[in-house]
Amino acid sequence: MEKNVHTFIGCDCEYDEAKIVLFGAPYDSTTSFRPGTRFASSAMRNESFGIETYSPYQDKDLLDVNVFDSGDLELPFGNPEGALRDIQSRTSEILDDGKVPCMIGGEHLVTLGAVRAVAEKYPDLHIVHFDAHADLRDDYLGVKESHACVLHRCWDIVGNGKIYQFGIRSGDRDEFKFAKEHTFMEKFGFFRLDSIVKKLQGKPVYFTLDLDVLDPSEFPGTGTPEAGGVTFKELMFAVEEVAKLNIVGFDVNELSPVYDQTGRSTALACKLLREILLYFYK
Amino acid sequence: MEKNVHTFIGCDCEYDEAKIVLFGAPYDSTTSFRPGTRFASSAMRNESFGIETYSPYQDKDLLDVNVFDSGDLELPFGNPEGALRDIQSRTSEILDDGKVPCMIGGEHLVTLGAVRAVAEKYPDLHIVHFDAHADLRDDYLGVKESHACVLHRCWDIVGNGKIYQFGIRSGDRDEFKFAKEHTFMEKFGFFRLDSIVKKLQGKPVYFTLDLDVLDPSEFPGTGTPEAGGVTFKELMFAVEEVAKLNIVGFDVNELSPVYDQTGRSTALACKLLREILLYFYK
Amino acid sequence: MEKNVHTFIGCDCEYDEAKIVLFGAPYDSTTSFRPGTRFASSAMRNESFGIETYSPYQDKDLLDVNVFDSGDLELPFGNPEGALRDIQSRTSEILDDGKVPCMIGGEHLVTLGAVRAVAEKYPDLHIVHFDAHADLRDDYLGVKESHACVLHRCWDIVGNGKIYQFGIRSGDRDEFKFAKEHTFMEKFGFFRLDSIVKKLQGKPVYFTLDLDVLDPSEFPGTGTPEAGGVTFKELMFAVEEVAKLNIVGFDVNELSPVYDQTGRSTALACKLLREILLYFYK
Amino acid sequence: MEKNVHTFIGCDCEYDEAKIVLFGAPYDSTTSFRPGTRFASSAMRNESFGIETYSPYQDKDLLDVNVFDSGDLELPFGNPEGALRDIQSRTSEILDDGKVPCMIGGEHLVTLGAVRAVAEKYPDLHIVHFDAHADLRDDYLGVKESHACVLHRCWDIVGNGKIYQFGIRSGDRDEFKFAKEHTFMEKFGFFRLDSIVKKLQGKPVYFTLDLDVLDPSEFPGTGTPEAGGVTFKELMFAVEEVAKLNIVGFDVNELSPVYDQTGRSTALACKLLREILLYFYK
Amino acid sequence: MEKNVHTFIGCDCEYDEAKIVLFGAPYDSTTSFRPGTRFASSAMRNESFGIETYSPYQDKDLLDVNVFDSGDLELPFGNPEGALRDIQSRTSEILDDGKVPCMIGGEHLVTLGAVRAVAEKYPDLHIVHFDAHADLRDDYLGVKESHACVLHRCWDIVGNGKIYQFGIRSGDRDEFKFAKEHTFMEKFGFFRLDSIVKKLQGKPVYFTLDLDVLDPSEFPGTGTPEAGGVTFKELMFAVEEVAKLNIVGFDVNELSPVYDQTGRSTALACKLLREILLYFYK
Amino acid sequence: MEKNVHTFIGCDCEYDEAKIVLFGAPYDSTTSFRPGTRFASSAMRNESFGIETYSPYQDKDLLDVNVFDSGDLELPFGNPEGALRDIQSRTSEILDDGKVPCMIGGEHLVTLGAVRAVAEKYPDLHIVHFDAHADLRDDYLGVKESHACVLHRCWDIVGNGKIYQFGIRSGDRDEFKFAKEHTFMEKFGFFRLDSIVKKLQGKPVYFTLDLDVLDPSEFPGTGTPEAGGVTFKELMFAVEEVAKLNIVGFDVNELSPVYDQTGRSTALACKLLREILLYFYK
Repeated sequence: MEKNVHTFIGCDCEYDEAKIVLFGAPYDSTTSFRPGTRFASSAMRNESFGIETYSPYQDKDLLDVNVFDSGDLELPFGNPEGALRDIQSRTSEILDDGKVPCMIGGEHLVTLGAVRAVAEKYPDLHIVHFDAHADLRDDYLGVKESHACVLHRCWDIVGNGKIYQFGIRSGDRDEFKFAKEHTFMEKFGFFRLDSIVKKLQGKPVYFTLDLDVLDPSEFPGTGTPEAGGVTFKELMFAVEEVAKLNIVGFDVNELSPVYDQTGRSTALACKLLREILLYFYK
Repeated sequence: MEKNVHTFIGCDCEYDEAKIVLFGAPYDSTTSFRPGTRFASSAMRNESFGIETYSPYQDKDLLDVNVFDSGDLELPFGNPEGALRDIQSRTSEILDDGKVPCMIGGEHLVTLGAVRAVAEKYPDLHIVHFDAHADLRDDYLGVKESHACVLHRCWDIVGNGKIYQFGIRSGDRDEFKFAKEHTFMEKFGFFRLDSIVKKLQGKPVYFTLDLDVLDPSEFPGTGTPEAGGVTFKELMFAVEEVAKLNIVGFDVNELSPVYDQTGRSTALACKLLREILLYFYK
Repeated sequence: MEKNVHTFIGCDCEYDEAKIVLFGAPYDSTTSFRPGTRFASSAMRNESFGIETYSPYQDKDLLDVNVFDSGDLELPFGNPEGALRDIQSRTSEILDDGKVPCMIGGEHLVTLGAVRAVAEKYPDLHIVHFDAHADLRDDYLGVKESHACVLHRCWDIVGNGKIYQFGIRSGDRDEFKFAKEHTFMEKFGFFRLDSIVKKLQGKPVYFTLDLDVLDPSEFPGTGTPEAGGVTFKELMFAVEEVAKLNIVGFDVNELSPVYDQTGRSTALACKLLREILLYFYK
Repeated sequence: MEKNVHTFIGCDCEYDEAKIVLFGAPYDSTTSFRPGTRFASSAMRNESFGIETYSPYQDKDLLDVNVFDSGDLELPFGNPEGALRDIQSRTSEILDDGKVPCMIGGEHLVTLGAVRAVAEKYPDLHIVHFDAHADLRDDYLGVKESHACVLHRCWDIVGNGKIYQFGIRSGDRDEFKFAKEHTFMEKFGFFRLDSIVKKLQGKPVYFTLDLDVLDPSEFPGTGTPEAGGVTFKELMFAVEEVAKLNIVGFDVNELSPVYDQTGRSTALACKLLREILLYFYK
Repeated sequence: MEKNVHTFIGCDCEYDEAKIVLFGAPYDSTTSFRPGTRFASSAMRNESFGIETYSPYQDKDLLDVNVFDSGDLELPFGNPEGALRDIQSRTSEILDDGKVPCMIGGEHLVTLGAVRAVAEKYPDLHIVHFDAHADLRDDYLGVKESHACVLHRCWDIVGNGKIYQFGIRSGDRDEFKFAKEHTFMEKFGFFRLDSIVKKLQGKPVYFTLDLDVLDPSEFPGTGTPEAGGVTFKELMFAVEEVAKLNIVGFDVNELSPVYDQTGRSTALACKLLREILLYFYK
Repeated sequence: MEKNVHTFIGCDCEYDEAKIVLFGAPYDSTTSFRPGTRFASSAMRNESFGIETYSPYQDKDLLDVNVFDSGDLELPFGNPEGALRDIQSRTSEILDDGKVPCMIGGEHLVTLGAVRAVAEKYPDLHIVHFDAHADLRDDYLGVKESHACVLHRCWDIVGNGKIYQFGIRSGDRDEFKFAKEHTFMEKFGFFRLDSIVKKLQGKPVYFTLDLDVLDPSEFPGTGTPEAGGVTFKELMFAVEEVAKLNIVGFDVNELSPVYDQTGRSTALACKLLREILLYFYK
């Protein structure tokens, strides 16, 4: 008898054969409003068995691609720097083996750990960021390594003109001012995404998807639901567009299953991850 | 003092005067993911008193039409064949009295019982099917009489070219292949429904509505929420279109009240049933 | 050390400096289906700290305007007339000080108390009403001061041709007949709102917003969810349009936080109130 | 085909044969904290099919006794006096036919309507009252016909020394003072119930059971959960004791199903009602 | 990198070294009231990481014993006989390897599959059964292989005087009559358990624990909560007593996580399983 | 008109007159299982209006004592040391004014901030600790300032023989070993509390109450429910006993309202805090 192996549906190839490697980063210690994203990766593995491996959108099947699910990191709550180090280390290990890391958050801060590793390997890194919130504060209540500052911290690494933000509809006045000077920001939706995709052809790109970019009517299971978001269908088109880039790492974060007892937020996240894996798999 | 009578709102005429007869089929034993549809008919009767009998959409009123609610069947859990027999028997009884049966599921398997009865009376039966899932598997984990196979079982009865599926957005690869060869399938929405309706004029039609064809943002109260569905308004237009057919039986299924504690899925199902009854009543 | 002060976010100026004055009317005794709106104002104050004071839609900030939150009235449950008197009295006090009252309901009946006060000061008062329900019954189960009759009661005060209703999609046959004869009613949405706004230029207008005008997919946290509603984005445009009028009082009602455990209905109501305050502040 | 009849399990005899007659009083307009008891009677009928008709405690079966369930009254929300009149009228009708009325509330105020009718027939009426709250205020926020005053209103009718209260563990200082002068009150539990029962032998007794006398650990589904209550087993013994009295009317109230999504409060209320019916049936 | 292995906490030894082997039987197709036990084993694995491996009750640690978690069976919903065959087969395999099977249900019917295998190996098998419900019907709505009949089916195998039932507090009249003639039944609690344990010394015993024997106040997460149950502490003493027997197989069933959103039912089940494993491990 | 003031019920005297000063410490960043305690103090203020100020247990009233509620600290999530500094500072300020601080957590880590301040003023400080968990780890996943280590950190300050723990029923083996050597620990309940109280007469004592010492049946609203706890009535007796000590500071923590949608955990915490304030007020 074999031990019980529990992966995201269809992501059970051997490590050596994998082109994409999943891992969970169940961390939400700096969440300022309603925590709970630490349960996202576990919930997604469980609920993924409620969806199919086959995509009628792309006529492709997870059974035909090689993705390896390496499980969750065990991260130290209350120690953001330690958590970021562990995430960076896992990401580097995957990159060193010539594979593409796919991280399931966790709060958005976890992106910083992955970006540190990816930027080390790809100095010319660009970042495409879908989110309801700008996440551009310099500090939040005195904390610099906070989910509310994560794109500012990424900007510390990649610098001006490298970050492209879409769907943003919340933030304080200073964040929007910062965006005007240092990033590309498209408020409310994906307008101009196609031209950005054309512009970034060939560049190494990290894609970070905060699921609260979706409208809370379709995705209520998140800590800070923000009305006026994009639809699932719009997001699917946008992801298809992003797939034309040279994606060297990506993450999906901010699912907080406990706030949506209908289960549909987790189901949507599973379906979306299936589609992203099938789109990004080359 | 009279005994307490508990019907769907406005459906309290005498049996003899009724043109449409409601019954509930509270069965969900083959549900593979999250059960709970057995509570749908009871919940809909309770919550129907939160809506009006009057439709501002059609300027018609349930008080002006004759619908009889005959209550719920008592079905044997764990014995699909027995349950199907009971459903078939109740459906035949209604048909024999020259009335149109309207069944409230239950999981989608219950449709098979009704279709058996209706196809017996109308050998040239056609089926119009709205659903998120193809439900075309030949068997599911070895079981043939499963909700996941129900349209395949119906095809066993009515044969090629008689089943018209709309809104489908989930299934395994084989189901979509089967559809190409044996049914008409419109993925994702209601495109081409109008031409199908023209084509089927005069034919006897059974209409089966799996409510998960709706987007989970509007209808989260179902066992397998599948993002990317149709809106309530789109469904209303589609139902209006279907009402132009010669409907000889119909069902509404897969509401699972327990997964939506806001109550709006049940409220939507009640409103939709009111509209369907008013559209289909001739 | 100061006593703990608890206001809607950013609404903490001194009373004398305020142009708009908030108060809560936590009353839901005549609710006929699912009560719970009494908790709306308290929940909105709590949850308002999950949104920002800055609006990226208008590039304005609550920190730059003067709004005073005077807390909740303590209203006598089971005594509608007493509750209405208290609401009228608070509204008059605010009007007498030359400020604009903004009431957070509560069930829709509370609007009657405010309209009594406002109509006293502005005899030529017009009312703009967004709602899913007509609320035009003459009585409800024999009760005249009921949420289901509130616009009929307002009509008793302001008379024919002064009430403009939008988004209505539920009511009994008599209410729609009454509307044809006595009010302006736009079913289902905001069509023709712009021309009404033009027509009402310069008139004193009370604006009453029943949040269930929104589709339950975006706003499930209400007692009587009614499918087929308007979207948040449509409502935002409509509110922007209404802001062109001479608003002398307004209310936001029918949020029932307990029915939406995801918290997003309350979050939406907070965001919407921020936008309304910023739009209406002159 | 017969119309759908929906009663509490096993309570389906003909009216003429019944000794006990059930009715629901779904009213909660004066509830001061969390409303929802209006759904109790409907929920209890639905959920009663999850229990058995047979009691292993008493070795008796509801199938062997004659109880008639006459359904719910339709009460005017926002009009306490009207609601009380309707309750009084139904109660009188049952008493006039020589049967024992059993009312399912609703908030505790409904007891007043029943007591008015019962006291009219039995001028020497005594009341046994199980509750967490004293309910002895003279008025509540100026309202006299409020759930918080209901036993004070009953005292207006029956006078000093006729009311026996058990399990009380909440109230303001004045209520406890009032109790010392005008009623018999046993705080926290059922101590001395047996001697009261001995004392009241032969007297006509109305029994009113506010289910929040139970500890919230066993019965969380109520508007104002109050820690430190009695256990289900203690309550069963107490009810067995009360059954030795000459019960001429009784009620069970303050179940609020929506606050207990586990369903066990409703299940407990159903089981308890079965036991009470079997104990009280003579 | 290793594939993700997901076991009940501390149950991760190699199969060959294990003395006890866990498996999940996620099946609930014959459930007559509220389904959901199919999610128990998965929920218990997830939530087991919220408890410790160390027991302060026994001063023992799961880290010091050898238990192997072999994961969940994939059972065919809607086909009870097929499901029972799969369970029997897995149980036999474990027994043949000289290990003790521990099954996590699922509805109580799953016990039948395990008992078939165990009785084959141990013809003199005795059964100790803790439950709120007698489960002794001969059939339920015509179905013989139903959760409500499972102990009757076990009696078909082991015969008179071999089944010992404790904590029973619900059933129909016939079940209690059947018990008098064919089993040993202790209603409501564990009285006389010690003498039964003495009597059964040395006999092979299968222990089946329906968690609804617990009071719903401590364990609300089950389909049919039945007031008047035993406490966790009483159950712990009873389990310690049972551990003195020669246990050759056991199961824990009827946890239905979805009905208890506080999570404490699952947490209690995890803690109890830890204690049982430590008590039964020899 | 006055600004809206929001305090725990009856705690609205002026600061100068107060003997006890409340403050909230809404922090839960190191929570290892299910976060949410950050909402405790706000929920308790809101829900406190559902209880009375009068205690029938003590025949005392909050209206007759002087307690000041200074609101919540704004603590930096993700920065435990910063949060502890803020808590220590507030506590010192209250102590310096000759008042007794009462902190509402938050996760249990917040106790460390208060103990630092209190131990500074009272070098001979003793600690009485009620909890389900030992909280004695030296570090947790490498973090020293974690809720799981908080009593170990307190021991760093006060040293051997100064900490008295009651009700403990969970921890790893090392924590129980540590307790044997360095603290007084009573497992499972309050046995021997009276003799400890006698022994500590006159000593300055800090009392820290982790509400999960209660059984989850009475208090499910906490992150890590642990079966086998004490009852509310036992805890009331124990608190009455503790009140005989010289309490120089105290806290109540680990209420996590979101996990208990019945609201009774918050209601219990409010009632308990009322009783504690009345017991401790001298």
